[in-house]
Amino acid sequence: MAVKGIQFWFEFASTYSYLSVMRIEHLARDAGVPVEWKPFLLGPIFRSQGWNTSPFNIYPLKGRYMWRDIERLCDNYGIPFKKPSHFPRNGLLAARVACMAASEGWCPEFTKAVFRANFAENREIADPKIITEILTSIGQEGSQVIARAESSENKEYLRKQTEEAVSLGIFGAPTFVVGTELFWGNDRLENAIDWYKKHIV
Amino acid sequence: MAVKGIQFWFEFASTYSYLSVMRIEHLARDAGVPVEWKPFLLGPIFRSQGWNTSPFNIYPLKGRYMWRDIERLCDNYGIPFKKPSHFPRNGLLAARVACMAASEGWCPEFTKAVFRANFAENREIADPKIITEILTSIGQEGSQVIARAESSENKEYLRKQTEEAVSLGIFGAPTFVVGTELFWGNDRLENAIDWYKKHIV
Repeated sequence: MAVKGIQFWFEFASTYSYLSVMRIEHLARDAGVPVEWKPFLLGPIFRSQGWNTSPFNIYPLKGRYMWRDIERLCDNYGIPFKKPSHFPRNGLLAARVACMAASEGWCPEFTKAVFRANFAENREIADPKIITEILTSIGQEGSQVIARAESSENKEYLRKQTEEAVSLGIFGAPTFVVGTELFWGNDRLENAIDWYKKHIV
Repeated sequence: MAVKGIQFWFEFASTYSYLSVMRIEHLARDAGVPVEWKPFLLGPIFRSQGWNTSPFNIYPLKGRYMWRDIERLCDNYGIPFKKPSHFPRNGLLAARVACMAASEGWCPEFTKAVFRANFAENREIADPKIITEILTSIGQEGSQVIARAESSENKEYLRKQTEEAVSLGIFGAPTFVVGTELFWGNDRLENAIDWYKKHIV
């Protein structure tokens, strides 16, 4: 199967996904690399490793480091950041809407708005009212979109997408898939783009 | 206390430490940043988190990814690499010698030779014969150095250094410490150097 670009796998609760959500569009555009946005859920993957929350909560030292690291990186990149009062936030509804958005072409706009709400504005993205407001702010029919996102067909779409992540060997977010190569973490975004330019184009 | 440079905390068993061991000297020299080499043991830190081996062995997906990532990064950096047949190798003796070497000014040379033996030549660095050969190859008196490294005074030095790592909040390797800032992982080496130049000098 011909490789048509980079798959960008992200999870709405993930801090390092936030960095890539805010960076991938201009980097990929500058490099002329198409990006396919692939929302998925890390929860089921973490649970299969015996974790019932983020490893950043399970290992407090690592968690404390992560927040400082994110703060410094946002500062370097010029990305707004405010530490959420609750972590990780449940991104199930957002991921369902994002699946629908991906098939309709407005996934990047919606996703950026949700990540900003979570990591720059400390808003509760698990709350359907917040998601409705975000949808309205980007010109979508909030409650109608949510109803479609909650359809059994769309729920199945996200389930299948998460199963696809598992079958690709994905274990964290963000992950970039270029052909048969996996690149894990915001630090690998540039490497994934370079790989595509060197080996695929 | 005045900050005199970057502390480079590394563990001989650690694959990502290998990348930094091979890179830090010329990056720091180009930037005019002094480096203090700080060998320590991750084993006691991992055990206190409930791990009895490397997380790359505990989580096989992450492990498989790590080996591919290291292979690609070595290729990018031009660092020789051959996957060791045994991982992680016990770096206790090497770390003890490195502590002594650090106080005598030949830590970088010894450390690079041991990391190359482990990750480019698949040699068993836990074997005192291999460490003796490495010492001889860099002009040290092998068996005499090992005897001094195994003295109770020097063993205590490494124990204290590992305790210092814990007290700094270090949970993985490599870690770069610049004043009160921690930078974890080979990916943060450049960030640590930039931080020093921006905030310390």
